[in-house]
Amino acid sequence: MAENIGAVARVMANFGLADLRLVNPRDGWPQERAWALASGAEWPLNAARVHDTVADAIADLNLVFATTARPRELQLPVLTPRAGATELSQAAARGDRVGLLFGGERAGLETADIALCQAVVTIPIDPRFRSLNLAQAVAINAYEWRTTVLDAPPPIFRELSPPADGAAMLGLFEHFERELDAAGFFHPPDKRPSMVQNLRSALGKARMSEQEVRTFRGVVTALSKGRGRVLAKLAKQKAERGDVE
Amino acid sequence: MAENIGAVARVMANFGLADLRLVNPRDGWPQERAWALASGAEWPLNAARVHDTVADAIADLNLVFATTARPRELQLPVLTPRAGATELSQAAARGDRVGLLFGGERAGLETADIALCQAVVTIPIDPRFRSLNLAQAVAINAYEWRTTVLDAPPPIFRELSPPADGAAMLGLFEHFERELDAAGFFHPPDKRPSMVQNLRSALGKARMSEQEVRTFRGVVTALSKGRGRVLAKLAKQKAERGDVE
Repeated sequence: MAENIGAVARVMANFGLADLRLVNPRDGWPQERAWALASGAEWPLNAARVHDTVADAIADLNLVFATTARPRELQLPVLTPRAGATELSQAAARGDRVGLLFGGERAGLETADIALCQAVVTIPIDPRFRSLNLAQAVAINAYEWRTTVLDAPPPIFRELSPPADGAAMLGLFEHFERELDAAGFFHPPDKRPSMVQNLRSALGKARMSEQEVRTFRGVVTALSKGRGRVLAKLAKQKAERGDVE
Repeated sequence: MAENIGAVARVMANFGLADLRLVNPRDGWPQERAWALASGAEWPLNAARVHDTVADAIADLNLVFATTARPRELQLPVLTPRAGATELSQAAARGDRVGLLFGGERAGLETADIALCQAVVTIPIDPRFRSLNLAQAVAINAYEWRTTVLDAPPPIFRELSPPADGAAMLGLFEHFERELDAAGFFHPPDKRPSMVQNLRSALGKARMSEQEVRTFRGVVTALSKGRGRVLAKLAKQKAERGDVE
């Protein structure tokens, strides 16, 4: 909803955030009502980018946490807003590009989108009344972010290579899944989406570096090319013998 | 504004608060729009009491903090929402009756009303954009209250499965490496030890569960069995043609 987006922009401005990315907004974009609800916090709206998919929206980010209150089948760590903000701000201090992913107020997030994230952040709301306004959820996480940043010790030296960005991870996932499709791994076919989600979250948790992603693509290629090389070798032998297919 | 009061009631319900006191509401009371904006959180509205003055509203309370972002001439301690919530919940645990006082979104609080309180709570908003929505201010303080009262991280919905043990991980690693050896992945041979270490640490970081380890062993098997199937098929074709190796 445009109203929610405007309220979110206002909260972002309150807590010093500016980079707003919208995935497939229900009412289209831009929407005047968003500006009306932002109470003057126009810069996040003016600079907002619209994406078709979550994968596209997080493609350049190294670390993304999904905010959701619903239990999922995914094996991802579940963090408080405080722990999540602490981890994100430490990563940002090392130079990583980080993000928080929120779902629409009604529908929330798709499990397939959460599977692209490295952890889940859950606000400790009263189980007797779970209907949390979207801008409130953003406010609490943005407040924790700002508190953490204000309290932060000076940036430490970078120790680890930064995690690969979302595009690199998606490339690895899709490479893996192509080869597994070719190998007939995903059966029965109706289980494929949940199998893919489980594989993605299991691998995504590792927060691999760019180099590690390249290595694993090499692994997948080696395992699948092995198949190709055997074929090529046999085809060559056959050709030398003058076999005809 | 009735809309703000409804939004505040919703946030109170989110964080387990119920005692709402209104001082001289601009639009009178009750107001249907408040119920419409509360998204079902009706009990704080139904039980709300209306007072003519702040002094009357806090008359039965032992400890009240005023939330404001503006500097004052008053010699009151200024607390973060976290410190304020900690102090209030400690007092409540001792049996004190405690409260938080908020001003209207535009006008804020009168200095005379703040002077009735024992401390000021200030949300660390960005000085470049101070226009904080009333319900957001309530949300952040209510969230800190609840976090403090819960005195623990929120229960996660389902404990993560524990990470697989070292033997299971080693089994996965060796399975992977056997197939990569067969595919000629490790070259030059003197680089094999460091390549193996890098693969193992990249995968081990994921802290996979037993189930995830089984899944990944299935992945490796699927990729390598594909190769086996191709070989077997070609061998069968050759046998049918009477080829001799």
